[in-house]
Amino acid sequence: MLLVLKFAGLCLCLGLCRGLQFNDVDEEAPSAAQTSKYGSLWPLPQEVNIAETSFKLSSSTFRIVDSKQSSAGPSCNILQNAYRKYFEYMFGVARKQEFGKNGRPGLSELTELQVWVTSVDSECDGYPSITSDESYELAVDQPFALLVAPKVWGALRGLETFSQLVYEDEFGAKNINATKIKDFPRFAHRGILLDTSRHYLPVKAILTTLETMAMNKYNVFHWHIVDDPSFPYLSRTFPNLSQKGAYHPYTHVYTPADVKMVIEFARLRGIRVIPEFDTPGHTQSWGKGQANLLTPCYSGSKPSGSFGPVNPILNTTYDFMTQFFKEISSVFPDAYVHLGGDEVDFTCWRSNPDIQKFMEDHGFGHDYSKLESFYIQRLLDIVTSTKKGYMIWQEVFDNGVKLKPDTVVHVWIGGGSNEELSKVTASGYTTILSAPWYLDYISYGQDWQKYYKVEPFNGSCLHLNTTKTCFCRTEQQKKLVIGGEACMWGEYVDATNLTPRLWPRASAVAERLWSHQNVTDINDAYSRLSAHRCRLVERGIPAEPLFSSYCPREYKAV
Amino acid sequence: MLLVLKFAGLCLCLGLCRGLQFNDVDEEAPSAAQTSKYGSLWPLPQEVNIAETSFKLSSSTFRIVDSKQSSAGPSCNILQNAYRKYFEYMFGVARKQEFGKNGRPGLSELTELQVWVTSVDSECDGYPSITSDESYELAVDQPFALLVAPKVWGALRGLETFSQLVYEDEFGAKNINATKIKDFPRFAHRGILLDTSRHYLPVKAILTTLETMAMNKYNVFHWHIVDDPSFPYLSRTFPNLSQKGAYHPYTHVYTPADVKMVIEFARLRGIRVIPEFDTPGHTQSWGKGQANLLTPCYSGSKPSGSFGPVNPILNTTYDFMTQFFKEISSVFPDAYVHLGGDEVDFTCWRSNPDIQKFMEDHGFGHDYSKLESFYIQRLLDIVTSTKKGYMIWQEVFDNGVKLKPDTVVHVWIGGGSNEELSKVTASGYTTILSAPWYLDYISYGQDWQKYYKVEPFNGSCLHLNTTKTCFCRTEQQKKLVIGGEACMWGEYVDATNLTPRLWPRASAVAERLWSHQNVTDINDAYSRLSAHRCRLVERGIPAEPLFSSYCPREYKAV
Repeated sequence: MLLVLKFAGLCLCLGLCRGLQFNDVDEEAPSAAQTSKYGSLWPLPQEVNIAETSFKLSSSTFRIVDSKQSSAGPSCNILQNAYRKYFEYMFGVARKQEFGKNGRPGLSELTELQVWVTSVDSECDGYPSITSDESYELAVDQPFALLVAPKVWGALRGLETFSQLVYEDEFGAKNINATKIKDFPRFAHRGILLDTSRHYLPVKAILTTLETMAMNKYNVFHWHIVDDPSFPYLSRTFPNLSQKGAYHPYTHVYTPADVKMVIEFARLRGIRVIPEFDTPGHTQSWGKGQANLLTPCYSGSKPSGSFGPVNPILNTTYDFMTQFFKEISSVFPDAYVHLGGDEVDFTCWRSNPDIQKFMEDHGFGHDYSKLESFYIQRLLDIVTSTKKGYMIWQEVFDNGVKLKPDTVVHVWIGGGSNEELSKVTASGYTTILSAPWYLDYISYGQDWQKYYKVEPFNGSCLHLNTTKTCFCRTEQQKKLVIGGEACMWGEYVDATNLTPRLWPRASAVAERLWSHQNVTDINDAYSRLSAHRCRLVERGIPAEPLFSSYCPREYKAV
Repeated sequence: MLLVLKFAGLCLCLGLCRGLQFNDVDEEAPSAAQTSKYGSLWPLPQEVNIAETSFKLSSSTFRIVDSKQSSAGPSCNILQNAYRKYFEYMFGVARKQEFGKNGRPGLSELTELQVWVTSVDSECDGYPSITSDESYELAVDQPFALLVAPKVWGALRGLETFSQLVYEDEFGAKNINATKIKDFPRFAHRGILLDTSRHYLPVKAILTTLETMAMNKYNVFHWHIVDDPSFPYLSRTFPNLSQKGAYHPYTHVYTPADVKMVIEFARLRGIRVIPEFDTPGHTQSWGKGQANLLTPCYSGSKPSGSFGPVNPILNTTYDFMTQFFKEISSVFPDAYVHLGGDEVDFTCWRSNPDIQKFMEDHGFGHDYSKLESFYIQRLLDIVTSTKKGYMIWQEVFDNGVKLKPDTVVHVWIGGGSNEELSKVTASGYTTILSAPWYLDYISYGQDWQKYYKVEPFNGSCLHLNTTKTCFCRTEQQKKLVIGGEACMWGEYVDATNLTPRLWPRASAVAERLWSHQNVTDINDAYSRLSAHRCRLVERGIPAEPLFSSYCPREYKAV
């Protein structure tokens, strides 16, 4: 990582103009009162070089245009859409200034950002994937600024960065400094999990989250769409699932049109949508609209009337799953689907005589994790036949289920400890980390720092009691850690509090997943994140404050 | 307290129609899955009698009118304003139903709520006070419903209650059951503290809070308007205080017109506005616009350039305070002003040679709490001369400052322990409790239950080590506990997250302060509060959820 700043003088202005005015008299002040030399950049690019020279930008002359050599032209929706959006972010509701209309640009004016997608296939009409190239290079200088990226995905990231470089001087004029940036993500999978089962989130709340994710260079929306409490996914094949299993069959469901809109809105922002249909546990809501899918629990020798996990001993279960995941594989374009597999409670299975017999017949003894693996194994085969890859929660790996080599194991247990990452990668599987980033857990104070300080490559040694083998991560293992996700489970979260609870806390995770491993200065992060938070507020996102302070333009839509 | 419910059958409908659909399968479910027989009433009135008979309400025929005997007629803004508001709350954006316009009301229709203010002086043109009568009686029956209250304040509370009795049947029709309610608050002082110094809150955020307070029968807005970080109060007498001390002199101040609007908006809802101007500590922002007000701190024999608490040894200090509080006493109509007096740090005073000499001259030795008392005593005399009463934080009482008999001592230290209440009331002073209700402290889970379970009269005995005297509270002492306040300090709160963080957690405190001491059933409270929360959401207030569940109409303004 190359961080060069030739002229420190300009930094004060960058910071002040972007909005952080830290209160340095409060008794609980953290140690980060100074302005960052990187202004409000968040997440910090891999290489940044900001010069002293500054240019003015006028809303009446400044344009974002396709470079002539670009493989993405006027027909590329992704970019045309982004140009308009970022213009608005930069200039707000600026009126057209007629008086400057016919004047020539001054020497110190920047009038154009040219966007040059260099690959023959810009991928403009495709979907982002785990292998998408998000790199870009940005050069702000006269006669024009140039954003170069192999694919549209990098161009999107670069546009966000460009918009973050623009600041207001004391007269409200828009300025940008001569800048060179070379940037790419540290991790390929940078996700947010939303839970739309414990509370239904209106589509608008999901779109707002996607919009804010793009401002933080997130690229995966993990849609934990159904769970025990409700089944809001409207299935064309099995409409009864939501008809009976949603909180309400009309007002609390995601129709095919809703899902399509979410996916396209995400695509335009370079964000993958990975749906999770968690089985065999967490499926109470499935049982309401699909008879015989769940295991009948027994009280003594009689059914108790309540139901447990998916019934793994019936052929009808697998017939259902085959049809269901065939639909899912066509509705969701991403190459991966998340199959869950966490927290299976064996109590109900144990109580059921048919299950007991099945266990005996298959020689499972009393080890119900074997039954769980039996189910999961068949489910994985079903999903494989739909040509999808899968992600699973770590228990599936822990239980020794046979996984395809491209399986992504999702680590969620253990909080700060990363031993599981060592185990998973030692077995050759790719993995993503969520354990330290359960953002639904809240506490008083600046907990963003806790999320920020997580280093996925730390604490990577595990001494097994039996063999004393050390699974210290090798470079090869490190490559298998492809990223992480911030999880916002829904027990205590709905549209009323989602956004301020998620942002800017998830921004802390975003920088950890995007920026270089060496970017760890908490004071510098405080300064940039405070300014970034004010930018989110100015863009209409109610992101909560880090500490006593103010934004030049406070959140108004109370 | 008389709680009569003749026909349990209707309750199911009341609850279902009001919106709580509790998810009873989630593993973390609390024990409160059933519907309350009191529907969605919150806070619970003192006496409730709901019958099985129900009446329909039509938006085209139903009217809220002044009773002919009422002392508050069409010129009473408070009521006319409230009638319109509650009509809208009950019927939403209901279109006028032309087809029913000329029809006679059916036998089962309720067409009128008559509001009868019985006192000769309705107090419609006055301000609420600590002695305001908020009692009311409500009888819902044919041919009309009758709300009787001695004063407009009780009428306001009764209108809220009436609106809470209205529910939708499965066809969306508005219904209300025959009901008799007799109600009055347990405590006279039921407040919310907002801190507009650590973060500036736009006036709109304050008004939203006042509106929601009225829905929860709160009656005091404690405006902690200035503090160390910023001084947003625009003083006519000393305009430099905000010109220099606010985060920004134009965008982050409360002008005289703003303050007037807040006070009138509050008055229309029966809410007192008590401003707090906290001295001698918490005054860093005052020093920016008022030279020589704060104590210069010394580093060795030289001034360090930083400043401490208000300088208590200069006559100019008291001249300033005299003028300043003269203005405050005329701007804020309430009979009380909050003078703070908490957390005075003596370090700076100790360092200053002039202060040291003053201490010596006055025989204070090294006891700086004597100097603090010296200052506070003079300040209290100044404020007394403006004909205002005062509230003070508990340290002022603890330090033995001589207080007027009508002083309200504000208890904030010690969390759940209420020993301080015993001490204060044993000394004959009135007191309010905030120690267990610092709502800016957050934690994962249903912390509303913790706030709800507080009983101000519990744990009231204190055995002093020296004398073994027991300050068990007598009935006389209990009368001196006049209420409490939920505090939302501003370190981590601004307009982006204020409302979901405050509600419905502050609703829990509201019921503790309004309802009978015996109202402690946590399951019943869970049911009613869930429905109340959905009502707040429906009225446009982003109140956060208690747990996995849904509202018929989710929050849309994401």
